[in-house]
Amino acid sequence: MTASGVSVRTGAHALFEVLEQWGIDLLFTCPGSTEAAVLDASIDVPAMRMVLTTHESIAVSAADGYARVTGRPAVAYLHANVGLANGIAHLACAASTRTPMLVLNGLKSTEMQNRGGFTTSPYPAEPARQYVREARVLLETGALAEDLTRTIAATLTEPGGPAYLGLPQNLVEAPFAGPVPAMQRHHVSSRRRPDPAAVDAAAALLRAARAVTIVAGAEIANDTARRALGALAARLGAPVLIEDRRTMTAAGILGDDPAFAGVYAPEHPAVVASDVLLFAGMPSFTEFEPLRTPVVPAGATVIHLCSDAAEVAKREGVDVGLIGNAALALADLLAALGPGAATNPSHRETAVAAARTKREGHRTAMRARYGESPLHPLVACNALAECLPRDAYVVGDAVTTNGYLADAVIPGSQREFLATGGGSLGWGMGAAIGVKLAKPDATVVSVTGDGAFQFGVQALWTAALLALPIVFVVIDNESYAAVKAGIKRYRRRGGRPDGDVFPASDLPGADIAMISRGFGAYAETVASVVEIAPAIERARAFDGPSVVVIKTDVAHTGP
Amino acid sequence: MTASGVSVRTGAHALFEVLEQWGIDLLFTCPGSTEAAVLDASIDVPAMRMVLTTHESIAVSAADGYARVTGRPAVAYLHANVGLANGIAHLACAASTRTPMLVLNGLKSTEMQNRGGFTTSPYPAEPARQYVREARVLLETGALAEDLTRTIAATLTEPGGPAYLGLPQNLVEAPFAGPVPAMQRHHVSSRRRPDPAAVDAAAALLRAARAVTIVAGAEIANDTARRALGALAARLGAPVLIEDRRTMTAAGILGDDPAFAGVYAPEHPAVVASDVLLFAGMPSFTEFEPLRTPVVPAGATVIHLCSDAAEVAKREGVDVGLIGNAALALADLLAALGPGAATNPSHRETAVAAARTKREGHRTAMRARYGESPLHPLVACNALAECLPRDAYVVGDAVTTNGYLADAVIPGSQREFLATGGGSLGWGMGAAIGVKLAKPDATVVSVTGDGAFQFGVQALWTAALLALPIVFVVIDNESYAAVKAGIKRYRRRGGRPDGDVFPASDLPGADIAMISRGFGAYAETVASVVEIAPAIERARAFDGPSVVVIKTDVAHTGP
Repeated sequence: MTASGVSVRTGAHALFEVLEQWGIDLLFTCPGSTEAAVLDASIDVPAMRMVLTTHESIAVSAADGYARVTGRPAVAYLHANVGLANGIAHLACAASTRTPMLVLNGLKSTEMQNRGGFTTSPYPAEPARQYVREARVLLETGALAEDLTRTIAATLTEPGGPAYLGLPQNLVEAPFAGPVPAMQRHHVSSRRRPDPAAVDAAAALLRAARAVTIVAGAEIANDTARRALGALAARLGAPVLIEDRRTMTAAGILGDDPAFAGVYAPEHPAVVASDVLLFAGMPSFTEFEPLRTPVVPAGATVIHLCSDAAEVAKREGVDVGLIGNAALALADLLAALGPGAATNPSHRETAVAAARTKREGHRTAMRARYGESPLHPLVACNALAECLPRDAYVVGDAVTTNGYLADAVIPGSQREFLATGGGSLGWGMGAAIGVKLAKPDATVVSVTGDGAFQFGVQALWTAALLALPIVFVVIDNESYAAVKAGIKRYRRRGGRPDGDVFPASDLPGADIAMISRGFGAYAETVASVVEIAPAIERARAFDGPSVVVIKTDVAHTGP
Repeated sequence: MTASGVSVRTGAHALFEVLEQWGIDLLFTCPGSTEAAVLDASIDVPAMRMVLTTHESIAVSAADGYARVTGRPAVAYLHANVGLANGIAHLACAASTRTPMLVLNGLKSTEMQNRGGFTTSPYPAEPARQYVREARVLLETGALAEDLTRTIAATLTEPGGPAYLGLPQNLVEAPFAGPVPAMQRHHVSSRRRPDPAAVDAAAALLRAARAVTIVAGAEIANDTARRALGALAARLGAPVLIEDRRTMTAAGILGDDPAFAGVYAPEHPAVVASDVLLFAGMPSFTEFEPLRTPVVPAGATVIHLCSDAAEVAKREGVDVGLIGNAALALADLLAALGPGAATNPSHRETAVAAARTKREGHRTAMRARYGESPLHPLVACNALAECLPRDAYVVGDAVTTNGYLADAVIPGSQREFLATGGGSLGWGMGAAIGVKLAKPDATVVSVTGDGAFQFGVQALWTAALLALPIVFVVIDNESYAAVKAGIKRYRRRGGRPDGDVFPASDLPGADIAMISRGFGAYAETVASVVEIAPAIERARAFDGPSVVVIKTDVAHTGP
């Protein structure tokens, strides 16, 4: 007997039973009538929090943010072919970050799908298929619990990633008999250690190295992996860099870690000074446009560790590749190295000190520019960083400004930084909702450009509904600066005149603060550094979402 | 030598040359850096109007509206995998209305696609494939003009529909030599007449009929087909109905046509009184949920004419199916019937008079309710209809209210009515932009619900940029009424208690007028009938987009 007083246990009830077993107590959705049974059954499951969004892109990005911060699977339940379509762009991002996300897709009754009924399509899973690890459509009610169980398990199987299950309306509405699979018997750890021969080979290279520098990727951005990395870096006397903005979706180590020495670049002094580079827990370098310069200095020995075999030796070759779980592999490496001291103990000290000096110089230079007008986004990001709590979660989705932002908010702090691995604007505003729901006590700050704001604007509605005190910062240059930058690069490549006409790239006229207030947010607009800190303070004091629009130089088009 | 002073003619220039040949002078886009060459080349093509949108869904729906009203192909140029994804939901709608829409998709350089570069995907065309008639990816610059030519031709080949062409950045940027295909040699009319045997069989049925009723579908909604239908209906003495809201994407005939007798339903008196029904220029009945009742009265003889063979005899069988161009087929039918008079001349008169009487009764009943509060959406739609110009274009995307709206605005007027054949919210606001650009002198009114408003909200930005005086009416019931209605039906079907709890279905808190003002629109909110006409008048007087929010009964969940 269910709580609603109805004795029929439906497929929808079984669905919630499976989710409950796996500890999933949030469901992000933008429903349609195909989800009627699920919505109705949710009344019987008070422990399940249904999070309503007003656009599927928000459901997907919020689930992404939640799953990335907790490491636990999150659910986005999307409606029919059109709802799924609206979620695909951010699903592509979740695929690139290997987020354990379950995309459930309410489909029309099996009776009418092949008759071309409303919002049906011949191949429901097709738009999602290339971005997920599993894509199945439920074929009978009796299989619902086991199909769902397998789909959840797929999201968690290292290297992890989204998975899709289509759920026809009639099959979810029908009575469901029998037990659901016991999670304990299906939750199998897929953390794997790399080939010991590869570990030994890597250890030999590290032992013989003159100086080692480590680049910590997003797979290191959790306590277990960070501890393992910290121990290895100490043993090697290696400074640790975070990924550059091309691949950085999370800061592998915190900016106040004693080994932190800045952001990776082939010309970084610590990289130049090293003969062995260990890229740990990160994908291959992602090209924005075909790269014409080497991603590592000539002659450097490269060890690359990643849980995703497809990312190792994908473009450049490696000297040793390690495929496996980051924490386990780093522990194996440490064990294989055995006791001993760093060959070059000053290498790390030098790099960390140089990074600190550079950072302080940069900060001084920035402060000297605090009075300038119009505001350069680089200056705006530095001023912003000065007034954010040192342990905030910063979700960066600011395109041309994202590199400035990461450089400003990470070094010297304990802030977690999340970025998208895709390029779908608006991801950050939805992701911030998921982060805040995962970390209710943390200060969560979303930073987007004004272009991305229009893509993620519906996040304000959900944040207002749930009274989530997220600070949404909008770097407003009234343009698609990345498009202008692309046009400039194109003109340079082809020796074309670099005029000041940039068709279809300007975004004048939107009063972002007013739009935000319309959604129920607290909002203000600032245009100078001196206004930023007080605005952020007022924003943080609001019991719900707030928006701080920082007007920046419209002529600037990125680094 | 191009106008920008550069002598290199690129693939992008060839692209514009092809579009120009086909008379395409508008390009809807939301660009990224992959489109740099196209944006730059557009400077050399002043006749091409680049319409910037701030979300791909608007580019696609605006192109859809433009193409549907003009019958000419329209272009949506989308950026990379994520931009395409954002356009897919409305592309599904365009597929259902067989809109001649060209989806161009800027892809990353071929050099890096297989290396998994940023915003690449293994199968770029896959999300679009099931919604388009052609889906190709350009493989070399030299083939650009011919690939594009074939893709445009595909959109126009009856029954028509969207087509996709992926355009890698490097291939579009490269020099292009040689001529582009002469449009005159590739623009081949695909209008076809149906099998003469089928025409004769249909004519025989019509000749022998006691009474014929015609249902005019969206394929009739153009001058040529309407003239042909008018002549046939006069010869047969047949009243003409428009499609019911399940399939109606355009009113086949105008509401002030002397043959107009209302909206199709199996129980419509004119349908009940007929022994032969001619469904002309429309798809098969689309099921929202599996239909349990017949779509035509038992014993009725059915003739179904459609340009899309897949739509005839798709679910129900037919007595005679006619596959071909609507205007040509109707002329063939008239010719096959030969001269003569209607068997039953009073049938049409009776039906038209009955429809008029019913309409007048309805209008009186509505007026009697003009004082009620809260406002029923049916009453709101009728009051709205009274103050809109009799020749307005009404784009309806109001979900549970759309049937009320069509019933209110079409009968007795010359208004063109456009609706979506899909179910992707927000379509209407973008489509209205396309309609207004196609018909600059017409009054264009978009009507959406408050749910759909959040999906199409970015349309306001483009409408403001172009100062398009479109009136966006929002029927604001602060809920996803269709979802609530779905939950109610589900509870009824399963004998579940119909409580008043509807999880994830309420949309409180958005101040739609304020959001709209933030985008640069004129906006006001009304909650009573007496306020509607003055608000519409002020809205129409504004030199740019305007928004009239009509607050309606939050407890109402549709027909």
